[in-house]
Amino acid sequence: LDQKMMGEAQIRLDQLTKPQGSLGKLEEIAVKLAGIYGELFPELQNKVHIIMAGDHGVAAEGVSAYPQSVTTQMVHNFLANGAAINALAEGSGAKLKIVDIGMIEDIDSELLVKAKIKAGTENMTKGAAMTREEAIKALEVGIEQAKKAVEEGADIISTGEVGIANTTPSSAVLAVFTGLELNKIVGKGTGLNEEGVKNKIDVIQKAIDYNKPDKEDALDVLASVGGLEIAGMAGVMLGAAAMKKAVVIDGLISAAAALTAYKLCPGVVKYLFPSHRSAEPGHIKIYEELNLEPFIDLQMRLGEGTGAVLALPFFDQAVNIIRDMATFEEAGVSKENE
Amino acid sequence: LDQKMMGEAQIRLDQLTKPQGSLGKLEEIAVKLAGIYGELFPELQNKVHIIMAGDHGVAAEGVSAYPQSVTTQMVHNFLANGAAINALAEGSGAKLKIVDIGMIEDIDSELLVKAKIKAGTENMTKGAAMTREEAIKALEVGIEQAKKAVEEGADIISTGEVGIANTTPSSAVLAVFTGLELNKIVGKGTGLNEEGVKNKIDVIQKAIDYNKPDKEDALDVLASVGGLEIAGMAGVMLGAAAMKKAVVIDGLISAAAALTAYKLCPGVVKYLFPSHRSAEPGHIKIYEELNLEPFIDLQMRLGEGTGAVLALPFFDQAVNIIRDMATFEEAGVSKENE
Repeated sequence: LDQKMMGEAQIRLDQLTKPQGSLGKLEEIAVKLAGIYGELFPELQNKVHIIMAGDHGVAAEGVSAYPQSVTTQMVHNFLANGAAINALAEGSGAKLKIVDIGMIEDIDSELLVKAKIKAGTENMTKGAAMTREEAIKALEVGIEQAKKAVEEGADIISTGEVGIANTTPSSAVLAVFTGLELNKIVGKGTGLNEEGVKNKIDVIQKAIDYNKPDKEDALDVLASVGGLEIAGMAGVMLGAAAMKKAVVIDGLISAAAALTAYKLCPGVVKYLFPSHRSAEPGHIKIYEELNLEPFIDLQMRLGEGTGAVLALPFFDQAVNIIRDMATFEEAGVSKENE
Repeated sequence: LDQKMMGEAQIRLDQLTKPQGSLGKLEEIAVKLAGIYGELFPELQNKVHIIMAGDHGVAAEGVSAYPQSVTTQMVHNFLANGAAINALAEGSGAKLKIVDIGMIEDIDSELLVKAKIKAGTENMTKGAAMTREEAIKALEVGIEQAKKAVEEGADIISTGEVGIANTTPSSAVLAVFTGLELNKIVGKGTGLNEEGVKNKIDVIQKAIDYNKPDKEDALDVLASVGGLEIAGMAGVMLGAAAMKKAVVIDGLISAAAALTAYKLCPGVVKYLFPSHRSAEPGHIKIYEELNLEPFIDLQMRLGEGTGAVLALPFFDQAVNIIRDMATFEEAGVSKENE
């Protein structure tokens, strides 16, 4: 990050007509953006929301309230402009980019980016979700998509996903990296009952016991108990960071991707922004690991990047503050204790 | 509220292509809006942010880090488009309306609504902040401004204020209505140190002891330990509710106004929406009384309505969801456990 520009941003924020620090995290966002873009007032007009779609072999273990076919059905829905993410991205002025990185079915649409690594992961209770090579390829898809988005003009990127059963590998990834107990981090996903959550915990434990991923080897964790869309989103984050653009985390799956990206390359966190706090209990644990704090809490648990796109206007507002406010001197306003 | 329309909104939300309830409070907002406006997809395009400006005699007791003259200076800054609220309201597409309901100084500007009840309240440690009659007049100013805004086209109103020392009367109002201990609700306002907070607590206690407001008589509480802008904001809330428009609460002062409006007329809460959670400890206590939960947390403590205008896009997004999403049937997506 551009430390000099961050210093200038902080100095300017402290001169603006408000008590120092009184805009809280909005000021922190302005400083971080200045560091990322190397300018005091970055223009974040072109917002791109990238959705990674992938299926999960572990769905066979009954860990989701929805049938696996819903992954493909929801991608059709995205392409037909009918999903929550379509409505919310439109409301936040973000362009959608939907990537098939590992759906079981194929969809023949020009609107869909076709980058399938394989038709869904393997059932991780009976082997690795994917090979190490596939995990690397999935990361590369994400990096490539971020790069392409930036080349096409993206100023800021938000991340989302779809993939029936994907809170299961996300919770597994979180559990392996942090060592936290499963009953403290596993939630009901899109709608499991108590019994369903109990089964989900057993399934994750089985997958971890079978694969014994090495937490010091992030690629091993990703390959053995992760997912293709998790890898793709981690790639988007790494790619956006490499292109010096801000990238916004969404819910549990996106946060699991962020944690994976961070384990692969800790510097990525400088380019990552939180958005909402999901209703999934594991979500906030990942933020604690990344030392980031979500600032929206609508008790959402949908995914698709719905929380991330809801947060996009806040980045504009942070820039509006530092760019448009008058200083104490300009406005003739007295300072503290004057 | 239109119960039939709220029922229809809930039915529609449950048919949309997402797990039921997975958009959390965004769905609750959509249902409440349907009830307020009597239509499923209310148009909230015209947003008006009303700022009430007033001074406080209790500032003489050293309860603020800023000199009292800053109230007027900041109103000049609002009028010159230089404050945080200008930048953020612009970013959220809200029109500003600034009302002098009780500044010590006068400002000669056509942009300012002149509705001064008196030139600042009295020092509440030595008597009532205002007479009962003045409190009623200040409420009426707010009601009138809300009515006028709606007549001029406002679809939704957010509330803000400026008035050096005004977290002091706000905390006093909260303490009287709830009986909570002062050390649990009094914060540092715009920048007091520990000693300053201690003094502020002593000052509030002195004001309560001197005036002995009757908590069952909301007008008595407002008049004896409240403020002109608190009364004005409470009036805006009552007026907006009477005109069947949604009205958005900001930080501590705005929340104290909401609590006062609620004590005067409990039904007002049906039209009130929370926005951010302020860094002032008393703020969340008021939300608990009103049974509302803020959904933005940026650790802000500025006032002016900055948190309320940051929340405005969320109301549009709630409408976008219920209006634009496809149903399971339309999209051909399988439901839970199908």
